[in-house]
Amino acid sequence: MTFDLLATDGAARRGRLVTAHGVVDTPAFMPVGTRGTVKSLGPDDLTAAGVQIVLANTYHLFLRPGHALVGELGGLHRFMAWPGPILTDSGGFQVWSLSKLRTLSEEGVRFRSPVDGSMHELSPELAIEVQQALGADIIHPLDECLAYPATREATERSLELTLRWARRAQVAQAREAGGPALFGIVQGGTFPELRARAARETIALGFDGYAIGGMAVGEPKPMMYDLTAAVAAQLPAGQPRYLMGVGKPDDLVECVARGVDMFDCVLPTRNARNGQCFTWNGPLTLKQARYERDGEPLDAACACYACRRFSRGYLRHLFMSEELLAYRLLSLHNVHFFQALMAAMRAAIATGAFAPFRARFFDRYAVSSVVVSHENNSSAEA
Amino acid sequence: MTFDLLATDGAARRGRLVTAHGVVDTPAFMPVGTRGTVKSLGPDDLTAAGVQIVLANTYHLFLRPGHALVGELGGLHRFMAWPGPILTDSGGFQVWSLSKLRTLSEEGVRFRSPVDGSMHELSPELAIEVQQALGADIIHPLDECLAYPATREATERSLELTLRWARRAQVAQAREAGGPALFGIVQGGTFPELRARAARETIALGFDGYAIGGMAVGEPKPMMYDLTAAVAAQLPAGQPRYLMGVGKPDDLVECVARGVDMFDCVLPTRNARNGQCFTWNGPLTLKQARYERDGEPLDAACACYACRRFSRGYLRHLFMSEELLAYRLLSLHNVHFFQALMAAMRAAIATGAFAPFRARFFDRYAVSSVVVSHENNSSAEA
Repeated sequence: MTFDLLATDGAARRGRLVTAHGVVDTPAFMPVGTRGTVKSLGPDDLTAAGVQIVLANTYHLFLRPGHALVGELGGLHRFMAWPGPILTDSGGFQVWSLSKLRTLSEEGVRFRSPVDGSMHELSPELAIEVQQALGADIIHPLDECLAYPATREATERSLELTLRWARRAQVAQAREAGGPALFGIVQGGTFPELRARAARETIALGFDGYAIGGMAVGEPKPMMYDLTAAVAAQLPAGQPRYLMGVGKPDDLVECVARGVDMFDCVLPTRNARNGQCFTWNGPLTLKQARYERDGEPLDAACACYACRRFSRGYLRHLFMSEELLAYRLLSLHNVHFFQALMAAMRAAIATGAFAPFRARFFDRYAVSSVVVSHENNSSAEA
Repeated sequence: MTFDLLATDGAARRGRLVTAHGVVDTPAFMPVGTRGTVKSLGPDDLTAAGVQIVLANTYHLFLRPGHALVGELGGLHRFMAWPGPILTDSGGFQVWSLSKLRTLSEEGVRFRSPVDGSMHELSPELAIEVQQALGADIIHPLDECLAYPATREATERSLELTLRWARRAQVAQAREAGGPALFGIVQGGTFPELRARAARETIALGFDGYAIGGMAVGEPKPMMYDLTAAVAAQLPAGQPRYLMGVGKPDDLVECVARGVDMFDCVLPTRNARNGQCFTWNGPLTLKQARYERDGEPLDAACACYACRRFSRGYLRHLFMSEELLAYRLLSLHNVHFFQALMAAMRAAIATGAFAPFRARFFDRYAVSSVVVSHENNSSAEA
């Protein structure tokens, strides 16, 4: 993997990642393909929406169908018929957010599968092995994720464990030319000095890129923005920066402004399944009666299949009737919107016009009406 | 609407329907778009599968979102963005099979909506008005549908009511040039002489085509085949014949052999959602463990997107994980298979080779393993 920083505009960065499976223009948003599919969408839909890279969840694929099976069937790219780059998380976040019964030790984590109740162990070494079997282009070390709020002491102990696990992940990876890129994960909770230490020590270990983990877990929004800006400013300019599990359209604009290159979130697809559509004017809740006889498209400015072919009235009818086509068309639109937003930001940065873009975006985009459907804004579609 | 009989081979017929919205090559299979969508599929998917005409359910659209709303938004073609021909049933079958509380009178039928519990009345005149507001290309008179088995007396009384309603439908239609085609529905239950009378008197009323109703409601398969053959033989050669709610691939072959031109059934989409895929070797039940590590496509002979891009192992994983993409891909495949089967029958009839085609089909197709997912093989996706 290589990364070229093509332009900067303030802290905002326009870059290009090149992986064995293709190019990713940054800032980039990665739709979440939890179980080897971005929910309700096929790879053709993703390509049509302008998606260049998808995220897959190590935790979910480890439990079902298992990395050995995916490996036997040719790896995740072939399995899900997605020819482009794939990034996998380490499984850490899902162990903490989805497995009720879990025990942590220096060795790793033991947890119960929500699929069939069986017990499993994930170590830093196994997390790498799983991601290698999947054949992802960008992989991550197992990390510990704390719930918010956490004490300083707990955060510091956790951060130290994450750093020891990161070192073990590096050893386990046994890097070969052409192998996957390994990103380090910067933890440190809500304590600026612990974030700074985490960044410093993770950078000292040396990774192909840096993820900022443990954000958007319930902390106040200004705190998330400030911590992100501080960590990003510490990270090496020549390597990609990935803010895990973020976010809403306004978060993407604000965090690009603070120097982030890559994002992932279940929001476009999860909210689509709850009837919420993103537009340049803000989100639109399709179940509202005002859309019942509305012959206009979701967003007149959108070129996606849902907007080109169907009215709000029809899409509302599908949604109210719980028709499967509703989930696909709304997901298609939302993923398309997120990609269009990233493309607009890339163009603005490239021409040194990010500040006016950001101002125009917030003039128009009605942030206040954004509703996150689930409290747990996790990086996996449960 | 015009119908040309292009070739015959025994009782099997190769024809062409021309409607204001396009051509339908017969024998034709119509996927069921109950609520203005063939479940999980978009119009682009239908076109890719070779579908030329879809069925929509008057009953469902009448209850939600209502024919007035569909009319306001430009009619059903525009509403569901399907540019090709649409056939609507009369709503009769669904009133009988889906509404628990219903009362029949000479005037029409009163029933309770399963959507919101509200009471509604459907008369022969209103059924025509609803279908005209939807803008369908081929419409049907309200008819009474009896459960199987029914007595001869009940069947005769019902048949006479259906004939009186058919006459009222004709008056209500007030035919204009370019208006929809109106098909008569031949009832008569399982009594050959009542079927003969129904056919004779429906033909005497004079319709643009003839539907055979009340079949595949529980009667023995040989009885259905015999009754269909006898009714078809009575119908005018120059007009299309539509066997309502049928059926399985083997039924399609057997009923084309008996002179039927048009079919509809929820089987390809409903069974897809239960993990059953149709192939030239018979149906395949994807949840079986034997497909877990199977890298082959569902059907190597199939050119659909699901077969071109994905393995059985991946599709099984999606299905077992209850991923929405499973329902779309399996529906896509099944609809594609049904269309391919009809195209193969059309080609065989055109070259006078239907008998050997039929023999080859049954040599290969494992009928016995066909499982219908629901007892009520209705013409609507409930």
